[in-house]
Amino acid sequence: MKQNALYGQSGGVTAVINASACGAIEAARRHGHIIGKMFAAPNGIMGALDEDLIDTTVESDDAIAALRHTPAGAFGSCRFKLEDFDIDRRRYERLIAVCKAHNIGYFLYNGGGDSADTCIKIAQFAETVGYPLQSVLIPKTIDNDLFGTDTCPGFGSVAKYIAVSTREASFDVRSMSRSSTKVFVFEVMGRHSGWIAAAGALAADSNHDLPIAIVFPEITFDNARLIARVRAMVDRYGYCTVVVSEGVKRADGRFLAEQGTNDAFGHSQLGGAAPIVAGILSSALGYKCHWAVADYLQRSARHVASRIDVDQAYAVGKAAVEMAIAGENAIMPTIVRTSGEPYTWAIGKVPLAEVANVEKLLPQEFISADGFGITNPCRAYLLPLIQGEDYPPYKNGLPTYITLKNKRVPKQLRPFEL
Amino acid sequence: MKQNALYGQSGGVTAVINASACGAIEAARRHGHIIGKMFAAPNGIMGALDEDLIDTTVESDDAIAALRHTPAGAFGSCRFKLEDFDIDRRRYERLIAVCKAHNIGYFLYNGGGDSADTCIKIAQFAETVGYPLQSVLIPKTIDNDLFGTDTCPGFGSVAKYIAVSTREASFDVRSMSRSSTKVFVFEVMGRHSGWIAAAGALAADSNHDLPIAIVFPEITFDNARLIARVRAMVDRYGYCTVVVSEGVKRADGRFLAEQGTNDAFGHSQLGGAAPIVAGILSSALGYKCHWAVADYLQRSARHVASRIDVDQAYAVGKAAVEMAIAGENAIMPTIVRTSGEPYTWAIGKVPLAEVANVEKLLPQEFISADGFGITNPCRAYLLPLIQGEDYPPYKNGLPTYITLKNKRVPKQLRPFEL
Repeated sequence: MKQNALYGQSGGVTAVINASACGAIEAARRHGHIIGKMFAAPNGIMGALDEDLIDTTVESDDAIAALRHTPAGAFGSCRFKLEDFDIDRRRYERLIAVCKAHNIGYFLYNGGGDSADTCIKIAQFAETVGYPLQSVLIPKTIDNDLFGTDTCPGFGSVAKYIAVSTREASFDVRSMSRSSTKVFVFEVMGRHSGWIAAAGALAADSNHDLPIAIVFPEITFDNARLIARVRAMVDRYGYCTVVVSEGVKRADGRFLAEQGTNDAFGHSQLGGAAPIVAGILSSALGYKCHWAVADYLQRSARHVASRIDVDQAYAVGKAAVEMAIAGENAIMPTIVRTSGEPYTWAIGKVPLAEVANVEKLLPQEFISADGFGITNPCRAYLLPLIQGEDYPPYKNGLPTYITLKNKRVPKQLRPFEL
Repeated sequence: MKQNALYGQSGGVTAVINASACGAIEAARRHGHIIGKMFAAPNGIMGALDEDLIDTTVESDDAIAALRHTPAGAFGSCRFKLEDFDIDRRRYERLIAVCKAHNIGYFLYNGGGDSADTCIKIAQFAETVGYPLQSVLIPKTIDNDLFGTDTCPGFGSVAKYIAVSTREASFDVRSMSRSSTKVFVFEVMGRHSGWIAAAGALAADSNHDLPIAIVFPEITFDNARLIARVRAMVDRYGYCTVVVSEGVKRADGRFLAEQGTNDAFGHSQLGGAAPIVAGILSSALGYKCHWAVADYLQRSARHVASRIDVDQAYAVGKAAVEMAIAGENAIMPTIVRTSGEPYTWAIGKVPLAEVANVEKLLPQEFISADGFGITNPCRAYLLPLIQGEDYPPYKNGLPTYITLKNKRVPKQLRPFEL
């Protein structure tokens, strides 16, 4: 008997998470003899608990295809953590009730480390109560910190955005440096891991001799060391760019961005790391500094996505459906680097138990000896992930992104207090 | 007798100022029977005063062509204000001496309102002392605040970047809003004029129903009005985006984001309105807010430049050379909108005396009645300026931007104390 599938998006969204949705939905349509309907849960597990299901079968093939070039989460995402089921059995029972009511046999959750945790708990609970459910995590995180996969869909496009922007802004500050700004400080995401910050170093290469310092969250922030490094770069080049990870911490373990009183500009209440670093440098060195905080711009920048990243995001979505119908459970499709140069990749898989709640930090051997740059192995790792352009279609000067109908499925159960 | 030309870049750089350089240099090469060498002054008037001249004739045609797709100032820019020549005759005499020493008969200055002032003073002084010099300003400013031209090269590409980014980030916050961020605050440039901020409103259209509020510098900032507007949008949509101009002021006339430092033109350094607005909104409404400050990213974003803007930047560079050799002086080529729909344009000209030190603000009729949006005439004005893509060539996943040799011309004069 055919069973339906439920797809959900979780955690921070990316430029390519909808490409995974596209891969999963298109695969489900191709396997219509096995999968009945593909439902989507609005706002991930929250929608599922609410029995608030979207019927993706009402969307045209063109609309689903357009997901491939549309950033962010077409069905809405969530930040919602399920407790263990011995603590919060009520929610797990509700989920199984929803699955039963809608004949759902496949659960496809598109997220990162926290979502892996959610996904594996659901798989375990379904097994405990004897409900047949194939749970698969579709990997997604710009932070690139998921264990078991060479890279995480979403990361390559952020890396490309950061590398492109760092190159462009470095050209800008170089132009201005003689009589005005000498330092450009650029804050990027990544939380505890420096993968995204590392991508800033790609802006410089043999044809683009640009002085760039990376401030990694893996290395304790030290005013004096950064000041010395910036002074040396400005002495030599006349200017420099500093790429700062949002997750940079001082020796006492607190985030730089939490030490708001140091913000030279009086914006302590919500200050990012960039204005603080700019304040430190301008006070110590007297240089005029400009700073930018990319925030959501970096992870939604579908207009400059990496083609490899789009392809891989699509492929893991597709693979998740194929693994689910092959009977796999509590598993995650992965990206396997089958060759470094030339770069080739394939889809692999890893049990979710190995993925959940593990954070893959930037290896020390990827950070240069002085702590402000990347090594050749790091460059060799990163470069393949930003290859290729995959421009969205433009209309009237702007990229056209799809907003789906998101038609709801009639509810069959009683309301549930989330 | 053939005379040489001197080209310089001044003020904040843009994604397309080098396209103007390309247009000017290529035109000079085509008119080699009239113009001898095209020199460039590194860092604008500062390089000229220092008799530090670049010989552009050593650059290959391919290198010059690559300027068209390279952001920022290939020769370096400056923030340097010349006083009137009755106060600072010494510098003007030096400039004329440099022109004489290098047989310079054409002075092409690529800048905005302040540079118009510099350019006209030089033209006037040359006339006063009887030195034959054709001075032409090539318009450039992302702020779009130059008088006498329908638009300013540099603006269209920033407008496109802001519109694209606002659309993408709005999709992001929409995805997150159910359980996390409800408001995205995006700070953009533009100083006293809201042209750039207005472009954020283009992110929404009939196919992209996105709630966006623009905070214009032309309208006194009022906490309560913005809070009410944001609350209404979040009540209806569940989320919203707020585009804030760096130049927003409170009722007492102070910038929301004043950093307390002034540049050489006496302008205060701005940046940091977004975290302040985010703080106001999260305190008042309890919403989680994310914020971004684009800063240099917006004006160097050649990867998403407007093709119309690139074409116009090239055209005014070319026209400046043609006007100079036609004997025009103290003049600026302009963009004339010959038809709105379909959009067509031509090159016109305006005397510099009408341009210098005049700031063209966003007209009141371009701002919607509630003060947070744009009117249809504004949309009709803006849309043509962001049309068309003009992607730079990519290599190894990144746009390749040219760095010229910038070979110096031997000095003939004694050193000069700037």
